Amino acid sequence: MDTPADIGVTGLAVMGRNLARNLARSGYSVAVHNRTPARTRALVEEFGGEGAFRPAESAKDFVASLKRPRRLITMVKAGEATDAVIAEFAPLLDEGDVIVDGGNAHFADTRRRERALRERGIHFVGAGISGGEEGALHGPSIMPGGSAEAYDSLGPMLETIAAKAADGSPCTTHVGTDGAGHFVKMVHNGIEYADMQLIGEAYHLLRDVAGYSPGQIAEVFRTWNGGRLDSYLMEVSAEVLAHTDAETGAPFVDVVADRAEQKGTGRWTVQTALELGVPVSGIAEAVFARSLSGHTSLRAAGAGLPGPRAEAMDTDAAGRFADQVEQALYASKLVSYAQGWHMLRAGAEEYGWDLDLGAIAAIWRGGCIIRAAFLDRIRSAYAAAPGLETLLADADFAAEIGRAQGDWRAVAATALRHGVPAPGFSAALAYYDGLRADRLPAALTQAQRDFFGAHTYRRVDRDGVFHTLWGGDRTQERAD
Amino acid sequence: MDTPADIGVTGLAVMGRNLARNLARSGYSVAVHNRTPARTRALVEEFGGEGAFRPAESAKDFVASLKRPRRLITMVKAGEATDAVIAEFAPLLDEGDVIVDGGNAHFADTRRRERALRERGIHFVGAGISGGEEGALHGPSIMPGGSAEAYDSLGPMLETIAAKAADGSPCTTHVGTDGAGHFVKMVHNGIEYADMQLIGEAYHLLRDVAGYSPGQIAEVFRTWNGGRLDSYLMEVSAEVLAHTDAETGAPFVDVVADRAEQKGTGRWTVQTALELGVPVSGIAEAVFARSLSGHTSLRAAGAGLPGPRAEAMDTDAAGRFADQVEQALYASKLVSYAQGWHMLRAGAEEYGWDLDLGAIAAIWRGGCIIRAAFLDRIRSAYAAAPGLETLLADADFAAEIGRAQGDWRAVAATALRHGVPAPGFSAALAYYDGLRADRLPAALTQAQRDFFGAHTYRRVDRDGVFHTLWGGDRTQERAD
Repeated sequence: MDTPADIGVTGLAVMGRNLARNLARSGYSVAVHNRTPARTRALVEEFGGEGAFRPAESAKDFVASLKRPRRLITMVKAGEATDAVIAEFAPLLDEGDVIVDGGNAHFADTRRRERALRERGIHFVGAGISGGEEGALHGPSIMPGGSAEAYDSLGPMLETIAAKAADGSPCTTHVGTDGAGHFVKMVHNGIEYADMQLIGEAYHLLRDVAGYSPGQIAEVFRTWNGGRLDSYLMEVSAEVLAHTDAETGAPFVDVVADRAEQKGTGRWTVQTALELGVPVSGIAEAVFARSLSGHTSLRAAGAGLPGPRAEAMDTDAAGRFADQVEQALYASKLVSYAQGWHMLRAGAEEYGWDLDLGAIAAIWRGGCIIRAAFLDRIRSAYAAAPGLETLLADADFAAEIGRAQGDWRAVAATALRHGVPAPGFSAALAYYDGLRADRLPAALTQAQRDFFGAHTYRRVDRDGVFHTLWGGDRTQERAD
Repeated sequence: MDTPADIGVTGLAVMGRNLARNLARSGYSVAVHNRTPARTRALVEEFGGEGAFRPAESAKDFVASLKRPRRLITMVKAGEATDAVIAEFAPLLDEGDVIVDGGNAHFADTRRRERALRERGIHFVGAGISGGEEGALHGPSIMPGGSAEAYDSLGPMLETIAAKAADGSPCTTHVGTDGAGHFVKMVHNGIEYADMQLIGEAYHLLRDVAGYSPGQIAEVFRTWNGGRLDSYLMEVSAEVLAHTDAETGAPFVDVVADRAEQKGTGRWTVQTALELGVPVSGIAEAVFARSLSGHTSLRAAGAGLPGPRAEAMDTDAAGRFADQVEQALYASKLVSYAQGWHMLRAGAEEYGWDLDLGAIAAIWRGGCIIRAAFLDRIRSAYAAAPGLETLLADADFAAEIGRAQGDWRAVAATALRHGVPAPGFSAALAYYDGLRADRLPAALTQAQRDFFGAHTYRRVDRDGVFHTLWGGDRTQERAD
C-alpha cells in the first residue's frame, strides 16, 4: 500500500479540483474523490503530473488512504449536498479526524454541523474560501473556523496554499470557533456586494453626468487604481469597461443585459445584520439594486415615469466632477467597510467568537475578491486600537473622510438632481450623518410609539422608563 | 348550565382584554380565560357590566362553555407561548372548531401551525390585529388568514367589531389562506416603520434646515394633515410635537431620549423581502435608522466627525422649503407603499395566496396605525387595474410624483448638503430613479461577476447565456 495521503479533497468540480491541484503543487500528497469517479480520473489524467494525487473511487478507499488524524476537505454545494457528504463520511472517521467544509455554507448550518460532529469527537472546520477558480488554484484567502486543535493540524497546509499579502504573510488564520469562518466569509461577500454597487454608481455617474464613454471610464478607473482605491475589483472594472464586443464592435458593457444576479450571500449578510441590529445600509442597497435590476416587468412599468432633464457638462467640468466622484466613492467605500466591521464585532459578541478584527483585514489583503491595499490600513487601524468603536473614528480615516465630505455631498446631490440612481452613495452619506448627529428624530419615533402603543420612552435628563397618558390628561407616569 | 358563549378569548393582557370587551359590547357572549385566573376575575369585576362575559378558570371549563363549532381567540405572546396555548387547547377541541391567533406571530409560524392543526381537522386562523389597545377596544383593523370555512364562521363577528372606513365598510376581510393574514400584518408594520421614519426626516429637516421650533412643526404637520398627507401618524406627530414637558417646560420631543426601539416586525419584513427578492429600501432604512439611534457608544465615537457648516434660512425661504418637504414626504411615502405592495404581490405568488391588493388597502383605511385617506386611493388604483405592476405606474400617482419630483430632489440634496441624515427620502428617490432608468450599471456588475467568478451573462441583442474567456483570448463562448 502507498504511503497515506496528507489530505483529501472530495467534490471535484472546478473549485475542488483547483484546490486539490494547489495542495499537490505545494508538495502535499492529496487523496481525491468525487461522487462520479469520471471526474476523479479526469483530474489525475489531466493534472497528475503536477504532484502526488491518490485517486479513490469509493468513500471507504478515500478515507483509508488518509494519514491519521485524517484531514478531508469537502468541496460540494452548500445545503443538503454538504449534509449528505458529512453523513457519508462521518461514520468512516475516528476521533480526532478533521472534516473541512470549503463550500459556501451559511454559518448557522456550520454551527449546527460542528456541534453534532463534536459530540462524535470529530473536528468540523467551516472554511470560507474566496478568490474564485483562479484563487483556489493559485492562492485564495481562506477563513477557517473551528477548534484550535483542528487549526494546529491544518494551519501549516492552509498557510502554504493561501495567497500571500504584499508583506509575505499568508492570507489565512484561525478565525474563531465553529461558524466563525463562514460568518466572516459572509461579511466579506456582503462588502463585495457593496463595493461592486459603489463602483457601478461611479460608472453610471461618469457615463450619464460627465458624459464619458466606457473606454474613458476605464482610463479613469485605471488612474484611481493607482491610488488609494487600488483594488482587484477596480482593476476588473477597468478591464471590463475597456473591452469591446467582437460581435458588434460596441463597448462590451453595452451589450450585457443589465440584470444583475446573485447567489444569496449578500442577502444572508443583510438578514443576519438585521438579526444582530447592525445597520448595513450599503450592503442592503447593493442587494436591492441587484434585485430591482432583475424585475423586468416592474422596470418596464416604471420606464415612462417623469425625470429631470439631462444637463450636459463641458470637458473641464467633467474632469472636476470625476475627481469628486473619486472622493465620493472612497468615502462611501469607507462607510461600507465600517458597517462590515461593526457587523464582525456584533457577530463576535453574539456568537462568542474571539475575532481579531485586524487579522481579518490582514487575510483579505490578498487572494479574495475584495483584496486591496486599503485593507492593510484597516489592519493597522485595529492593530493600533483593537477596541476601535468604528473604522470612521480612526484618526487617519476620519481625516480623509473630512476632506472628502464636501465632494461626496456634491456628487450625491448631483446624482439626485440628474436622476441617476446612487443609492449606495446616498445611503453611506446618510449613515455618516446619522453617526455624527447630535440629536436624531428617533426621539419623535419613540414619542409616537408611546402615543399609539404605550411603548414608553426614556428621558435625556434622568434615568427611568416613562409613559405619557396621551389619551388622558397627558401627565407623565413611571413605567418601570 | 348557561347557554354556550359565542366566542372565547384566552390571554387577557391589555390587547386580549380589550378585544373581549369589544366583542361583549357588540352583543356577543364571550368566554374569557387567562393562565392566572386573577386577571379573568378582574376583567369581569371591572367590565362585567359591558356585556355577557363567561369567566372560566380552567382550559377545560373554558372550552366547555363555547358554542359549537367552537371559536376561540388566543391573545398571548408570539412564539413559544402561542405554541404552548395551542398544545393545551387543541386536545380539548373537536373537528371543525376554530382557533384564532390574534398575536403578532411570524407568518411562517402561522403556516406551520395551520398545517399541523388542519391535519387534526381544526381550523387555525392567523389574524393580524392592528390599532393598539384603543383599536382593540373601539375597532381595530383585522387581517385574518385561514380557510374560507373558518372565515364564514368568524367573519360576521370580526366585521362587527372591526373599525369602519369612512364609507362604512368594515376594516376586515378574508385575506387568504394559512399565514396570509400575519404576512399582510407584517407588511403593514414594515410600511408603518417607513412612514414613521419619513415623518422623522421631515421633522428633522424643518427643525435643522428651516429652523422651525417643535411647536411650529406641529402647526405645519396639522396643515399637511388637512391635505393628501392626512393620516393617523401625521396627527400623532403633531400632537407629540405640540406637547410641552411639564417638568422642564421644554418641548416634549427634546426631553425624550433619541434611541428608537423596535419589537422586530420591521426586521421580519425586510428579512422576508430579501427572501422574496423584493427591494424594500424604505423599510430597510427605517429599521437601520432605529438601530443606529440605539448604538450609543457608536454614536459617541462618531460625534466628532466633520460635517458641513450650517447655513441659516430666512423666513420666506423656510416657508418655501417647508412646501418642498411636503412634496418630498408625499413622494417618498408613495414609494414606500409601492415597495410594500410589490412585496404583497411577491408574497402572494410565493406562498400561493389569492391576495386582493385593493381589499388590503381598503381594510387599512381605518383602525390600524397607518390608517389614512390615502389608502382609499390605493384601493381604487387596484380596483381599476388589479394587475397594476407598481403603484407608481397608476396614472394619478405618476402624475403627482411627476409634479413632486423637482422639490423631492431639491429637498434630498439639501439634506445632503446640510448634513441632515435623510436616508428614507434619498433611498426612495434612488428607487424611483432606478425604476425609471433605461440602463442600469447592473450590466457592469454582471460583467464583473463573469470576470472573477465565471458567473456568465446575457446579451441585450440575442438569447442565450454567455461567458467571456477573460483569462484567455477574451473571446465569448456559449454557456448554456
